[in-house]
Amino acid sequence: MNSPSADRYFEPTTRDIARRLYDAVNDLPLICPHGHVDPAMLAAPHYDYGTPVDLLIIPDHYIFRMLYSQGIALESLGIPRKDGTPVETDHRRIWQLVADHWHLFRATPTGIWVADELANVFSIQEKFSSASAQAIYDQIAEKLVQPDFQPRALFERFNIEVLATTDPAASRLEHHRAIRDSEWTGRVIPTFRPDAVVNLDTEGWHDHITCLSEVTGINIHNYSTFIDALKHQRAVFQSLGATATDHAALEAYTERLTSAESEAIFQRALRATASGDDARRFTAHMLSEMARMSVDDGLVMQLHIGAYRNHNPHVFEQFGRDMGADIPVHSEFTRALKPLLDDVGSSPNMTLILFNLDEATYSRELAPLAGHYPALRLGPPWWFFDSLYGMRRFFETVIETAGLYNTVGFNDDTRAYPSIPARHDVWRRASADWLAGLVARHIIDEDGAHEMIRDLAYNLAKTAYRMSS
Amino acid sequence: MNSPSADRYFEPTTRDIARRLYDAVNDLPLICPHGHVDPAMLAAPHYDYGTPVDLLIIPDHYIFRMLYSQGIALESLGIPRKDGTPVETDHRRIWQLVADHWHLFRATPTGIWVADELANVFSIQEKFSSASAQAIYDQIAEKLVQPDFQPRALFERFNIEVLATTDPAASRLEHHRAIRDSEWTGRVIPTFRPDAVVNLDTEGWHDHITCLSEVTGINIHNYSTFIDALKHQRAVFQSLGATATDHAALEAYTERLTSAESEAIFQRALRATASGDDARRFTAHMLSEMARMSVDDGLVMQLHIGAYRNHNPHVFEQFGRDMGADIPVHSEFTRALKPLLDDVGSSPNMTLILFNLDEATYSRELAPLAGHYPALRLGPPWWFFDSLYGMRRFFETVIETAGLYNTVGFNDDTRAYPSIPARHDVWRRASADWLAGLVARHIIDEDGAHEMIRDLAYNLAKTAYRMSS
Amino acid sequence: MNSPSADRYFEPTTRDIARRLYDAVNDLPLICPHGHVDPAMLAAPHYDYGTPVDLLIIPDHYIFRMLYSQGIALESLGIPRKDGTPVETDHRRIWQLVADHWHLFRATPTGIWVADELANVFSIQEKFSSASAQAIYDQIAEKLVQPDFQPRALFERFNIEVLATTDPAASRLEHHRAIRDSEWTGRVIPTFRPDAVVNLDTEGWHDHITCLSEVTGINIHNYSTFIDALKHQRAVFQSLGATATDHAALEAYTERLTSAESEAIFQRALRATASGDDARRFTAHMLSEMARMSVDDGLVMQLHIGAYRNHNPHVFEQFGRDMGADIPVHSEFTRALKPLLDDVGSSPNMTLILFNLDEATYSRELAPLAGHYPALRLGPPWWFFDSLYGMRRFFETVIETAGLYNTVGFNDDTRAYPSIPARHDVWRRASADWLAGLVARHIIDEDGAHEMIRDLAYNLAKTAYRMSS
Repeated sequence: MNSPSADRYFEPTTRDIARRLYDAVNDLPLICPHGHVDPAMLAAPHYDYGTPVDLLIIPDHYIFRMLYSQGIALESLGIPRKDGTPVETDHRRIWQLVADHWHLFRATPTGIWVADELANVFSIQEKFSSASAQAIYDQIAEKLVQPDFQPRALFERFNIEVLATTDPAASRLEHHRAIRDSEWTGRVIPTFRPDAVVNLDTEGWHDHITCLSEVTGINIHNYSTFIDALKHQRAVFQSLGATATDHAALEAYTERLTSAESEAIFQRALRATASGDDARRFTAHMLSEMARMSVDDGLVMQLHIGAYRNHNPHVFEQFGRDMGADIPVHSEFTRALKPLLDDVGSSPNMTLILFNLDEATYSRELAPLAGHYPALRLGPPWWFFDSLYGMRRFFETVIETAGLYNTVGFNDDTRAYPSIPARHDVWRRASADWLAGLVARHIIDEDGAHEMIRDLAYNLAKTAYRMSS
Repeated sequence: MNSPSADRYFEPTTRDIARRLYDAVNDLPLICPHGHVDPAMLAAPHYDYGTPVDLLIIPDHYIFRMLYSQGIALESLGIPRKDGTPVETDHRRIWQLVADHWHLFRATPTGIWVADELANVFSIQEKFSSASAQAIYDQIAEKLVQPDFQPRALFERFNIEVLATTDPAASRLEHHRAIRDSEWTGRVIPTFRPDAVVNLDTEGWHDHITCLSEVTGINIHNYSTFIDALKHQRAVFQSLGATATDHAALEAYTERLTSAESEAIFQRALRATASGDDARRFTAHMLSEMARMSVDDGLVMQLHIGAYRNHNPHVFEQFGRDMGADIPVHSEFTRALKPLLDDVGSSPNMTLILFNLDEATYSRELAPLAGHYPALRLGPPWWFFDSLYGMRRFFETVIETAGLYNTVGFNDDTRAYPSIPARHDVWRRASADWLAGLVARHIIDEDGAHEMIRDLAYNLAKTAYRMSS
Repeated sequence: MNSPSADRYFEPTTRDIARRLYDAVNDLPLICPHGHVDPAMLAAPHYDYGTPVDLLIIPDHYIFRMLYSQGIALESLGIPRKDGTPVETDHRRIWQLVADHWHLFRATPTGIWVADELANVFSIQEKFSSASAQAIYDQIAEKLVQPDFQPRALFERFNIEVLATTDPAASRLEHHRAIRDSEWTGRVIPTFRPDAVVNLDTEGWHDHITCLSEVTGINIHNYSTFIDALKHQRAVFQSLGATATDHAALEAYTERLTSAESEAIFQRALRATASGDDARRFTAHMLSEMARMSVDDGLVMQLHIGAYRNHNPHVFEQFGRDMGADIPVHSEFTRALKPLLDDVGSSPNMTLILFNLDEATYSRELAPLAGHYPALRLGPPWWFFDSLYGMRRFFETVIETAGLYNTVGFNDDTRAYPSIPARHDVWRRASADWLAGLVARHIIDEDGAHEMIRDLAYNLAKTAYRMSS
C-alpha cells in the first residue's frame, strides 16, 4: 500500500493525531471474542480451502446479497440449492462475474474489507477489476496451497490472541477438543449458543432436543431435565475455554414464567402443540433463565436483537438460511428487558452484552440503560453497522451517555476468516479518527486518547469477555 | 454569484476535490422523473405567470407554512379561502411581508432555493431583504413577461432532458396531448397516480370513480371493471410517454385480499358503507395489485409513505389540502411490505422505488431491504429531507448497506417550476461534497468518485425510471 | 485556561469563524428559564453548602449513575438510603473514589462540565485525578465558605439575568417570597409544575391534593374545585414572577374528556379506585386542560416527554427517585398531540415548548410540527442530549425543517448550581461551531450568523418564555 492509504479512513484535518493514536495500537494482538469462524479450519493440521471462490465468495452473504439485489441469480454465483439443482461450477467464471460488478461495492464495508484482504493478506498490488480478475484469481489460488497460508499460520500472522467461535448448545465440540489435544497453542474457544433448543419454533426443534439429550446423556423429557442438560453443556463449554454464551432473538422481550407455566409450555412443545405465543413467551423466559445461569457460572451473556430472519421465502426455500435475506426490525429495550434487569441487572457477577440493528435505540435506550445498570455493556455496531459511518454514529450517539467503559471494544462477528485483520483495522482506524476529533476539539487530551485507543483496540474486549485468565 | 459561492455547500477541507467532481457534472442535463409541475404551463404556447407572488409564494407551502408557524395569517399571504372570504390581494404588500420575515428561512432549504432562484434564474444581484423587496419584485415582474422566461424557454435554459408530471388516474391528459401535438419537442411525460380511486376514504371517491368510468368508457360497477379501467388508463398514460406510477399511503402496509374480499369491499365502497378497516385493507391490497400490473406493463412503481395529511383541521377547513400541515409519522417496512415483496420483490421486470419521511428507517429497514431485493430501489431524501443535511444523512446511513446502485439519483418533487435548477444543484453539490470526503479519506479513489457523481447526477435516475428509450 | 482551550469544542477548520461568533456573545447575561436549582439557596442570606461532596457529588445523579453502572455501590458514594441504613460519611474518601474513577467520564458532558467548573468557578489549575483529588478538595472546601462563593454572589458572577426554578403546584413558594421580600435584586422566579396532582398514579397523590387544598383554601372535593385550585395557584405563581408551567409525562398522549368523564375519574381517584387507564386518560385530559389555562393566563407551557422513571426497582426501593435510573422510551407526537393542537395549536396567545428523549422524533415529528403550528416551539436537547454531539444532531435534524425561530435557545435544566455557566458555555460554543460550519459552506453569511448566535445565546429564550417584561 502506498503512503496516502496508510492514513486511510482518517479525516484530513485531524490526520496527524489519528495517525499517532493508530500507530500506538496497530501492533496489539487481536481479541476476537465473537465470530463465526468454523473451528474445523483450525482443528485440521492441513486444511483445504478449495478455490478462491470457495473461500471468499460462496460463504459470504455480504457479497452475494448485493449482487442478488442487482438481479444476479444466486445460482450463477455457485450458491448451492437445497434441492440439488445444478448451479454454476466454473469458479473462474463466478470470480469474473463478481469482478464485473465490483463497482456495486463502492463505499461499502465489504468493498473496504476485500480491498484490504487482497492487499494485506494476499499481497496483491492490482486493483480488483474486470481486467485484473483472472490474474488475481491465480495469485490467490497459488497462495492458498502454501503452508504459510494455512489457517494456523494465518492465526499467528494475524496476531490473534484469542478467537471465540459460536457453537450450538448440542455440539460435541470435537474440533475444539482436537485443537486442545493438538500441539498447536493458538487459543480458540467455543461460545455456547442455545437458540436452536431455546426457541421452540426453530425448524427441527425436536431433533435438536434429541441431540442435546444424546450429547449430555440426560433424557430430556420435561422442563427440569431440559435445564439440567443446558447447565451440563455450559460446564462442558467452560471446560473447553468458553467465557461466553450467545443468544439471538427477534425482540428483547423478557419475562419470568412460573414453574408450572414453563413446564406446561415445554410439554406442549414436546407434543408439537406449542403456539406462537408459547414460543415467544418461552424464549422470553429462557433469556431470563440463562441470565440466572450466567450469574451462577460466570459466563458472559451476549444478546443479538432485531434480525427478521429469512425474509425472502423464495430464497429461503431454494437456498436456505443465511442467504443475505435477514432484515432488521424496530427494537424496544426499556420495557422489554426490564424483567431480566429487575432480576439480574444489578448483580455484580453478571455481564450482559447487547447488540442490535436499530440505531434509533442507541441514544434513546441502549446508552441510558448501559449508563445505569452494572450488568449491562454495549457491543460494537453490529452487522450492517460494522462500517466506518456505523462506528462513527455509534461513538457519537452512545459514548456521551454510556461512557466508553460501558462498551466492550470490537468483535469481528465474521465467518470470513481472512477478513479478520481488515475488520479490526477498520475499527481501530475509526476509533483513532473519532478520538482525534475529540482531541482537536479539546474535549479530551491526547494522553487520555492514548489510553482510550488501547481500551478500544484491546483492553475492553478482553476484560468484558473475562479473557484475562 | 461571486467566486466563494461557486464553492457553496462544500466542506472547506475537501473543497478542491468536491469542485472537480461538481464541475464534471454541472453541465449534464436534468432528469426530472418525479414532480408536480402543472403540465398546463408547458402546454400553453403563451403562459401568464401572474405576479411574482402568484408564481413564487401562493403555490409554495414550503414558504407559507413557515410564516404561518410564526403567527402570520395565511389570509395575509393571499392564500385563497375555500369559502371565498376575501384575502389579501395587494401582492406587493404580501411580497413585503415575506421579505420582512425572511430571516425565518436562514439555514433552511427553502432559503437556499429562493436565493439561488433569484440569483441564477432572475439574475438579481441584491440579497432579498425588507429594503430590497420592492426593487426585486419589479425585476421579477419585468422578467416574467419576457419571451425567454416562458416555461418552454426556461425548460431549455434549465437543460431539462425529461420532466415527469404527476397526474390523477382519471385524467384525460389533455395538456400532455397538447404538448405532444405541438411543434415543441421538450419531453414532458405523465405519471399515473391512482390514489384518489384506490384509497376508498378519499374525499369525493364516488366522483373520482365516475370520472374514471367516463374517461375510460368502462362502466365501473364492480372490482373487476375497476381493475379493467385502471389497466386501460395505465396503457393510455404509457402511450403518452409515462414510465412510472406513483402511490402515496400513510403506511407501507400491504396484503393480498381474495377475489371475494376485494369484491365485497368494493361493493361496500360503492354503497358508501366501507369501514376504515375496509379502506386500509383495500389500499394495502391495491398496492400489491398495482405492483402486479407493473410486472406486466413495465411501469416503474413509486411509493411515498408516511405523511399524515391535513393534520390541522382548521387550516384544512378554511384553506384545503397541501397547506403545509402534513406531518410525518413513524414508518415500518420490514413486516408491512413483506406480502408485496413475497409476490414481486424478486421479479426481474419489477422496479419499486420507496420514499419515506422517517429517517430511522433508512439504516434499519430501507437500506437492508434494497440491498437484498432485486425489485427495490430507494428514492432520494423526500420533502423535509430534500436538504443539505438530509442528503448527507441519507448518504451516510444508506449507501454502506444498500450500495449506491440500489438508489435512484435525484428528483425535485416540486410544483415550484423555477426552483428546479436550484434543487438539482443542491443535490449535485451535496453528492460532490459527500464523495469528496470519501476520496479524502481513501475510502474510494477519485476515478471511482467521478463515475459515482455522474451516476448520482444523471444516470441512476434515467436508468431506474426506464427513460433511456 | 490556556490558549488552545479558549477554542475548546470548535471544529479546527472553522475555528476562526466560530471564535468570532462565540466572542460576540460570551459576555451576554444567562437566561435560565428552566431548571431545578433549590430556591432555598438563594433565599438564604448565608447559605451552608456543606462539603464539596455535599455540593457536587451527592445531589448529582449524572455523576453517581455512571459510577453505579461500573459496580460502585451508591452507599459508598454517600447517597442516603430511605431506610436509614448507614452509608459512607467520610467525604474525602468519597471524593477520592470519584477521582479514582474519573476516566469513566472521558468524552462525556459531565466530564466537560466538572472540568469547566473546577477551572472557571473554583480557579483550580490541576487536572482532576487520583493524585490531585485531596488538594482539589481542600481548595473547593476553602472557597465554599468565602462570601464571594455564596449563591447570590455566584448569581451575579455568573451573570444570570433570570433564573426560573421548578416548584410543585402546591408549593407555598416561601423561598420565592423571601427572595422578593429581601433587599437582594436577583430575578429568581418559580415555575408551576402540577405533575404530582395531575398524574393520579403519583405516589401520595391524596396527600398532594390535601396540600393543594390547604395552600389554596379551596376544599378540593370534585373535578371543578380541583380546577379552581389549579387556577388559583397559577395566579399565585404569576404574582411571584412565574412565566411558565412545566409538565412531565411518559407519553405525549392528549385527549379531551367530557365533564362527566373527568368528574367520574376524579371521584374514583379520590376513592383510590382509579385504574391505570383512568390515570393515563386523566393525564392526557389535563395536558389539554392546562393548555387551555395557558391560553387564558398567558403562562408558557413546557412539556417533557419520554422518561420511564425509576426503572430499577432495587435502587428506587433503597434510595428513592432521581437516582439515575430514569430511562427513555420511544415517543410519538403526530397523533398523540393532535387533540391538544386541534384545540389550541393555532391560538395566538399559546406557547407550548416540547422536550423529549427520542431523537428519532426530531426530524420526523417535532420539526415538522413546530414548522407548522403557531403555538409550538422546540426546547433544546434535553437531559442525555444536553451534550456537544446531542446539540449538533439537534441543529442538523431540526433547523432545516423548523427553522431557528421555532426553537427557544437553551436552558440548563440543572440542580447543580455551580455547573450553570459551564452548561451555557457548551451551548454557546456548540451554537458557534455549528454556525461557523454553515458560514464556511456559504449556507448563511457571517452577518446572519451573528444575529443567529445572539438569538441562540440570549434572545430566543427570553422571548419564548415571555421574560422581557
